[in-house]
Amino acid sequence: MSSGPSISDLDGVYANAIQAGIKEGGYDLSYIYVPDALASAGVFTKNQCPASSVIHTRKALKRGVFKVIVVSSGNANAGTGEKGASDTQQIVKSVAKKLGLKQSEVAVAATGIIGKRLPLDKVQLGIEALFKDAYQKHGEQVAEGILTTDTFTKTAYTSQKVGKKTVQVAGIAKGSGMIAPNMATMLGFLVTDAKVSSAFLQRALTEAVGKTFNRISVDTDTSTSDMVLVLSTGKVAIAENDPAQAQAFKSTLTEATHQLAQQIIRDGEGAKTVIEATVKGAITHTGAEEIARHIIDSPLVKTAIHGQDPNWGRILMAIGKSQGTKINQKKLMINIQNNRVYQEGAPTDFDLEQLRQSLDTDTVSIEVDCQLGTGTATCWGCELTKGYIDINTAYN
Amino acid sequence: MSSGPSISDLDGVYANAIQAGIKEGGYDLSYIYVPDALASAGVFTKNQCPASSVIHTRKALKRGVFKVIVVSSGNANAGTGEKGASDTQQIVKSVAKKLGLKQSEVAVAATGIIGKRLPLDKVQLGIEALFKDAYQKHGEQVAEGILTTDTFTKTAYTSQKVGKKTVQVAGIAKGSGMIAPNMATMLGFLVTDAKVSSAFLQRALTEAVGKTFNRISVDTDTSTSDMVLVLSTGKVAIAENDPAQAQAFKSTLTEATHQLAQQIIRDGEGAKTVIEATVKGAITHTGAEEIARHIIDSPLVKTAIHGQDPNWGRILMAIGKSQGTKINQKKLMINIQNNRVYQEGAPTDFDLEQLRQSLDTDTVSIEVDCQLGTGTATCWGCELTKGYIDINTAYN
Repeated sequence: MSSGPSISDLDGVYANAIQAGIKEGGYDLSYIYVPDALASAGVFTKNQCPASSVIHTRKALKRGVFKVIVVSSGNANAGTGEKGASDTQQIVKSVAKKLGLKQSEVAVAATGIIGKRLPLDKVQLGIEALFKDAYQKHGEQVAEGILTTDTFTKTAYTSQKVGKKTVQVAGIAKGSGMIAPNMATMLGFLVTDAKVSSAFLQRALTEAVGKTFNRISVDTDTSTSDMVLVLSTGKVAIAENDPAQAQAFKSTLTEATHQLAQQIIRDGEGAKTVIEATVKGAITHTGAEEIARHIIDSPLVKTAIHGQDPNWGRILMAIGKSQGTKINQKKLMINIQNNRVYQEGAPTDFDLEQLRQSLDTDTVSIEVDCQLGTGTATCWGCELTKGYIDINTAYN
Repeated sequence: MSSGPSISDLDGVYANAIQAGIKEGGYDLSYIYVPDALASAGVFTKNQCPASSVIHTRKALKRGVFKVIVVSSGNANAGTGEKGASDTQQIVKSVAKKLGLKQSEVAVAATGIIGKRLPLDKVQLGIEALFKDAYQKHGEQVAEGILTTDTFTKTAYTSQKVGKKTVQVAGIAKGSGMIAPNMATMLGFLVTDAKVSSAFLQRALTEAVGKTFNRISVDTDTSTSDMVLVLSTGKVAIAENDPAQAQAFKSTLTEATHQLAQQIIRDGEGAKTVIEATVKGAITHTGAEEIARHIIDSPLVKTAIHGQDPNWGRILMAIGKSQGTKINQKKLMINIQNNRVYQEGAPTDFDLEQLRQSLDTDTVSIEVDCQLGTGTATCWGCELTKGYIDINTAYN
């Protein structure tokens, strides 16, 4: 979807993918390697039944900076118990040995079906082939290699002046279903050349994820394998203690995660139309986010949009589901595609046919003004279609 | 679905329905009348954008005992502002006048599309016709008259010895979509002959709803018009201060609401298969309920069941979504249709084909043992099908 340099176009970043035979056809084993990585950070799923890749990588991150990310797709190696955990450990060991790294310097991620063990033999052979020459520059192949039910690759590139230097962020992501990040996300991997500490990078990533990956939902389901990782090559020194520079870097990173999140929601299983719900005038930002989330998560709003039905009554219902923040239905104002459809507790005299036609589009915007405070938030969801049922009835 | 006496078979309970022209075809204006009602209670939607019927009836209940319930179907008269509220008031006034009651003795309920005003002229003519003779005994017609997208009527009847007397509870309900009660329910109306105080009846109803109507979900959406009401004729004196008698009455009422809740979930839009999720061994009952709710609410579990796929990986994912209670994935045990599919952190060696075939049934049971405590709960949901998409893409 987005153009621009790939992750391996950044100096000091290497990437490659091969077909190891984990899934049927296509690249399924990938790496991103930053041999001189100076900082790393990660945000992980809050699912209480995480995959062994999540458990390992979360632990590794606590020990220091990781320098390589190895990703398998087609199999999440989740719910596979001690044997699955031991498979993950084997992969980590092999990669560490190949690259002369400590095991805690190897991050692993896996995506695909839950509950099946990885074909370890194939993965081991794949690792041998992949790291014969670890200094490859095939970022586009990795963007492809991490996909499962996705219908297109998701890449982002941003750059911005931070102080007198230009810093770059490049990233890739995968995700299409089981998308309702909870303090984490699908798989997302980013690299930057900004020289910052891991602590600062962690804060910046957490903030970026909170505003982007955590504000999209395809189906309210939270994967057991989600993670977003970022690695810094440290080539471009910036002053992270300078508030302006810190902010400039954070906005660059956030813009990159925003681009990726938008591509994920655009690729929502079975969906063509994105629903963008913006809430303002809530008592708090958190309250606004809760309301926006109820709108994008409502199956009845999602099916109405799919049917090109500007059914504001269902939007009103979804707003009213909020229990954590106050709402006054007499003060509420609801816009669909910039048309006011509801105010002062009742529908306006809008042109139904015209509005209905305006829903035949890529993105439907729903705006809510609570007129109670200054809280604002935007969340993104997608329509619910028979395509979603098809994909998920048959996926196994 | 269930047989037995209708609500108006109880002594002192009158009921009738007519076709007033609110919706196309079928009964759409109904009443349940208990002229000598001695107690009443109600539980209402927690949706913050309630319909004017909810606002009126909640208020009426605070003032005392109501004696008649008037229900319109096909139009929820929600989101219709002051004009809609004034329509509701007009209905209340007319019914009160006809029956010689105070306005606070008239409960109103409405169900159907949100955001359209009622055809008040037709409703007024309907009230004239309906209450020409208010002493009718057509409970079955009322069970039919309160339906919208439902495919069958929902009725319940229970009776039990309380002390030396036999008390009866009869009820009706409607609901098929927009079903995720939040401290309330769809429409449900019950009558009993047990002579109890309104305060006791309220406690009993709140408890019954919490265990039954509030444990079902079709689509996680919470209606703006939900209410469950109960009226007592007071014909059978019981000792509500006697713990055994109090408990006996509560269990009779709970059994009636359970029967109705089961019929609603069985009629879930587009669904044929009910998903029954029972969780035990959680740290608390609330924790068990949270886990069970995540299972029945997960679109990916629902589509898997629809595809007759015993996808325990998605069940594990749904369990892990719980944030309010602790889970240990190594201790978890998961059964599908009484077959152990997961324990000690990994899948068992179950017979996939046999289990797959066992999912071609009316009710699929999912049992989870957390092995952490004594908390238990059961929740009921239904599969997610193309039928749901059809119904809700076109409904307006």
